[in-house]
Amino acid sequence: MIMKKNWRTLSRRGNRCFQICMIFLIVVGMLAATVSADPLSSWNEGQTKQAIIKFVQEVTNKSSPKYVSPEQRIATFDNDGTLWAEQPIPFQGFFTFDRVKALAPQHPEWKERQPFKAILENDMKALAAAGEKGAMEIIMTTHAGMTTGEFEKIVKDWLTTAKHPRFKKPFTDLVYQPMLELLAYFRGNGFKTYIVSGGGVEFMRPWSEKVYGIPPEQVVGSSVKLKFEMRDGKPVLMRLPEIDFIDDGPGKPVGIQKFIGRRPIAAFGNSDGDLQMLQWTAAGEGPRLMLLVHHTDAEREWAYDPQSSMQRFDKALDEALRRGWTVVDMKKDWKRVFPF
Amino acid sequence: MIMKKNWRTLSRRGNRCFQICMIFLIVVGMLAATVSADPLSSWNEGQTKQAIIKFVQEVTNKSSPKYVSPEQRIATFDNDGTLWAEQPIPFQGFFTFDRVKALAPQHPEWKERQPFKAILENDMKALAAAGEKGAMEIIMTTHAGMTTGEFEKIVKDWLTTAKHPRFKKPFTDLVYQPMLELLAYFRGNGFKTYIVSGGGVEFMRPWSEKVYGIPPEQVVGSSVKLKFEMRDGKPVLMRLPEIDFIDDGPGKPVGIQKFIGRRPIAAFGNSDGDLQMLQWTAAGEGPRLMLLVHHTDAEREWAYDPQSSMQRFDKALDEALRRGWTVVDMKKDWKRVFPF
Repeated sequence: MIMKKNWRTLSRRGNRCFQICMIFLIVVGMLAATVSADPLSSWNEGQTKQAIIKFVQEVTNKSSPKYVSPEQRIATFDNDGTLWAEQPIPFQGFFTFDRVKALAPQHPEWKERQPFKAILENDMKALAAAGEKGAMEIIMTTHAGMTTGEFEKIVKDWLTTAKHPRFKKPFTDLVYQPMLELLAYFRGNGFKTYIVSGGGVEFMRPWSEKVYGIPPEQVVGSSVKLKFEMRDGKPVLMRLPEIDFIDDGPGKPVGIQKFIGRRPIAAFGNSDGDLQMLQWTAAGEGPRLMLLVHHTDAEREWAYDPQSSMQRFDKALDEALRRGWTVVDMKKDWKRVFPF
Repeated sequence: MIMKKNWRTLSRRGNRCFQICMIFLIVVGMLAATVSADPLSSWNEGQTKQAIIKFVQEVTNKSSPKYVSPEQRIATFDNDGTLWAEQPIPFQGFFTFDRVKALAPQHPEWKERQPFKAILENDMKALAAAGEKGAMEIIMTTHAGMTTGEFEKIVKDWLTTAKHPRFKKPFTDLVYQPMLELLAYFRGNGFKTYIVSGGGVEFMRPWSEKVYGIPPEQVVGSSVKLKFEMRDGKPVLMRLPEIDFIDDGPGKPVGIQKFIGRRPIAAFGNSDGDLQMLQWTAAGEGPRLMLLVHHTDAEREWAYDPQSSMQRFDKALDEALRRGWTVVDMKKDWKRVFPF
């Protein structure tokens, strides 16, 4: 009753103003509803977007023959080049170089010793010449020899200061807006979203939840061996300078089985390193979505040579075209690339 | 209107009968509500039950200084002896022996070859004499050399026919009713419940969801190496006769970090093999629950000798008593042991 009286008073006092305000609010509300009705608003209309939506609608529609129960809705995503950019080199490379530079004062001998000398002098040719053995030595020096807690702090600290050389922004800003929307769209439809990446699992976990909404327990990646130890009466896990698991190529379906124990019904990648993950996903029964991001946008992001040694996308693209997997043409399919 | 008339007719026709029925229904309803109000109805009242409930209430109460946000609510459970029985030997042992017997017709040489001969003749003394090397040979023969899909089917088929020697029931009936209630109680309060067991991960995953409500992706265990292969154009994961990971003792905190990537706030075990998992859990900041099941009930289950070589519970019990961890006295604390 009191409320009714107040409304009348308000209405009498500024009747026209009130009406205009109400109409304005209604229009804004309708616009907002229209915008939020498209969960993939950064994707241009077309075959790719349609294929994604059709798949999600079918597997979630209880009366569809393609219905999949929620516990089976597992979607796995490569990280570098699929969820965030990976040029000019995968971002964990920048982290590694910065760690060598940060540790250099404690290792004066590195000034004269390869492959450390190459990094300190930004000599990429000498670094490449150090080959896989050199790379492994650098990775072990920068990624092992500390506790898991110490490494987590190193990664978090680095992310707050490091900037991408081209975009001059924190690396975690270089995530793909259309893929953020896709992750949220899948989760909103009962999917569990997993990262399955060749990158280091402990390099991704400290920020995956904040940036992608993917919790640490849903990140699968490469790892070093860990050792449980007592240090001053407190238990710690030491990171040992020894590879435990390489989650790349044929390692991806292995990682999926080890860490998830179910076959995904949707898998997302962008290179030959993702081929076996997509093959493994495709080989299951029932509806499937296999999607590959093709980097075709030199202006807003990068256009890759499919034969490039770093991010080879040759066999996977062939197989995608042959088997009718979904290929994202970044230039054509994405309205926006980055959130900024 | 029609409904109202019907009620009146009913009321007039059998007024007294109707009233008695209604009172009966209300009483039944109240009783049911009282029963369902206790999520741990198979636990006797006492310190142990109080400690569990107090912990859960504190970490879920937003106005408590001990509040823990839902994503941090990770609880890890040992399996053998903590969620299901493990006597006279851990049940995966029975599976292994049955597999040797099932495979024997294809291996006539086993009749004369240890350690297979020992199993075929039920000669436990000769089996023990084969030591760790013998045990490993048996495990690899029975747990490797097939695809992951084939192994899953073998485990599932075995479970439908195998019976426990003492209780003459399927092994999955020998789960602890109080622990099933505890799992549901924790999940109902926003916890993610994980198995962290020394047993084989692929031996547990085929039934963990149905029996415990724990999905395959929340099972951490020991494993053999896997290899991705193409077989008749179809991708398979082969189980190799090589240990990948032993999830026991100091391996448990390692497994937790590898597979979950977060420290639990509650951990449950029953032997020295769980000690490091409980130490790792206890060493985190904020409220913690460390619980050990002490097998004290020779009548309904088993009473163990803490010094027994198979399920040693010596250091862990010492540390539990010294640090005030929760110890379940099975005989005293459990109203019921098994669901049957």
